[in-house]
Amino acid sequence: MSLTIDKLATPSVLIDIDRVRANLRRAQDYADTHGLRLRPHIKTHKVPALARLQVELGACGITCQKLSEAEVMADAGLSDIFISYNIVGADKLSRLTALARRITLSVAADSAYTVSGYIDAARAADVTLTVLVECDTGAGRCGVATADAALDLARRLEGASHARFGGLMTYPKAGGTEQTAAWIAGALDLFARAGMAVPVVSSGGTPDMWRAHLVPGVTEYRPGTYIYMDRSQVAAGAATLDECALTVQATVVSRPSETRAVLDAGTKTLTSDLLGLDGFGHVLSCPSARVDALSEEHGVIQADAEVLPALGERVRIVPNHACVVSNMFDRVYFVSGDTVLDAVPVAARGCVT
Amino acid sequence: MSLTIDKLATPSVLIDIDRVRANLRRAQDYADTHGLRLRPHIKTHKVPALARLQVELGACGITCQKLSEAEVMADAGLSDIFISYNIVGADKLSRLTALARRITLSVAADSAYTVSGYIDAARAADVTLTVLVECDTGAGRCGVATADAALDLARRLEGASHARFGGLMTYPKAGGTEQTAAWIAGALDLFARAGMAVPVVSSGGTPDMWRAHLVPGVTEYRPGTYIYMDRSQVAAGAATLDECALTVQATVVSRPSETRAVLDAGTKTLTSDLLGLDGFGHVLSCPSARVDALSEEHGVIQADAEVLPALGERVRIVPNHACVVSNMFDRVYFVSGDTVLDAVPVAARGCVT
Repeated sequence: MSLTIDKLATPSVLIDIDRVRANLRRAQDYADTHGLRLRPHIKTHKVPALARLQVELGACGITCQKLSEAEVMADAGLSDIFISYNIVGADKLSRLTALARRITLSVAADSAYTVSGYIDAARAADVTLTVLVECDTGAGRCGVATADAALDLARRLEGASHARFGGLMTYPKAGGTEQTAAWIAGALDLFARAGMAVPVVSSGGTPDMWRAHLVPGVTEYRPGTYIYMDRSQVAAGAATLDECALTVQATVVSRPSETRAVLDAGTKTLTSDLLGLDGFGHVLSCPSARVDALSEEHGVIQADAEVLPALGERVRIVPNHACVVSNMFDRVYFVSGDTVLDAVPVAARGCVT
Repeated sequence: MSLTIDKLATPSVLIDIDRVRANLRRAQDYADTHGLRLRPHIKTHKVPALARLQVELGACGITCQKLSEAEVMADAGLSDIFISYNIVGADKLSRLTALARRITLSVAADSAYTVSGYIDAARAADVTLTVLVECDTGAGRCGVATADAALDLARRLEGASHARFGGLMTYPKAGGTEQTAAWIAGALDLFARAGMAVPVVSSGGTPDMWRAHLVPGVTEYRPGTYIYMDRSQVAAGAATLDECALTVQATVVSRPSETRAVLDAGTKTLTSDLLGLDGFGHVLSCPSARVDALSEEHGVIQADAEVLPALGERVRIVPNHACVVSNMFDRVYFVSGDTVLDAVPVAARGCVT
């Protein structure tokens, strides 16, 4: 007798595995068509089985944001990992070089400080670290500001005995495809004139992934959210609601007024991420409902009395941001339709170090 | 040789145990002075040892928002727990009655639907459930809207063989002390005229806790954040920065511009909770810094070049909201000054069901 989703305690996170497969295939087909390698960012799911599925379907490896995520994934058999983050500090650097002994590892840097740390740690551990230089092509987060600065770091890496310049990487500004293209073109021109090969040019971000081929020179793409999609990606035009594979199942626990219902899903489930949207999620069975206000365990929704779900009724919510929801739960449920296939630990949840 | 905080991997959550004790004592003294019982909400810390400390210092018991939190706390020896939430659904109701056999348990309800569920489940399990009626005194979340509705639920409970009316509870609107007082006064008057005793009147919320005695009739108070305090409580005037016991230790991993630094603490550490504040936290060593933009693993801070922390430097951040930070971490570190005393599992982290 199979378990159905209505038997799960709420709130619970449901992963529609058919949609997951379709989302992964669509992205891999797109990448193959345009000669791009995919290196999915596992931050969205944090589940080794899904990382393996991404690789099985054609990904060249995976991306992790944190060393501890990479350690979990390496323990689960993933063998080619890029850590898209500056790893800083002696303890983390020795974990990094230990990991570099076990798998094909690459890592990001955006400063001489980080590069020096890598070079010294690699020499001390007698391993060779492959380092991609992070470039700020417009997002204003990390990354060197100029191609000259990128070239300087590349030269430092190539000049070191235990390091290798792995290429350029960027997390571009959402909607900034043209700006990214101009930055990358300028950098590739500078590197060519300097006689410095750029083995990989890696970009990322789901909102603009279907425009990845419009940035000449990009060889690799690191989408994260594309596996689940979410309300923010629907708003950005990168997906439809029918492609959203992660939903939160919640129960109406209070109906204090005609037009107000309270769900057992608050910020401990959906988080406070708005990502510029109105409300904290989309209630599939009541699309006109506004997920109005969250506290930790309460989600207040407002709608007209005749459509508002009843006390005890279950609803499914497409969250604004799937990645952060994954991080709130120790396990998610793989489902096909309304059938529960498996309860799966979110093995890399909470990996912040 | 003792471990100091600079040896901990970042980001890490530090709990200044001296401040914790002082915060708990101050609140208990206040409660004792005004003849109030304290029933702290453990959502803020989710740590059994701290719940026990609260009881040792005089709390009459604890409050949990979720059944699974209460189960963790009962397993850890806490013996008097109020669950301030509507428990809905057959599976949860049978967990609730199982818990009621083990400890002194009370639970909230704001509808005939929830009350019926309790009465039926208690009869089936042959236990007696003590139920407090939740009242919306202005916060607009859960709770009956009128004293008449509260009286109706109280009568249903008193008329049932396996239930008991435990009193009234509210989570008042922040800053709404007068409104709460008026609501409670009206309800107590109605109940008195109806000849219905109200054993407990329970209110909560740290922002207004030092005004709890200004609401006549309140017998019990359920503060949560008071144990740690945070930036939102400082803004509300309920605490000073020097009373904030929870800080996030983070490292500067990038300095992409003169006035921008990037910390290894993003929404997976601080969460997106703004609570009406500007920025996502207060950097103790750089009070003028604006914690400007968070992504999952990056915290961008902006400040004048001469005060901005350097690459590799560690900072401590008072978060906007301490409770949600606790929920992001598998363990926190108890510290005294810069000395690490213990690594403590956040045992009730992620308890959403």
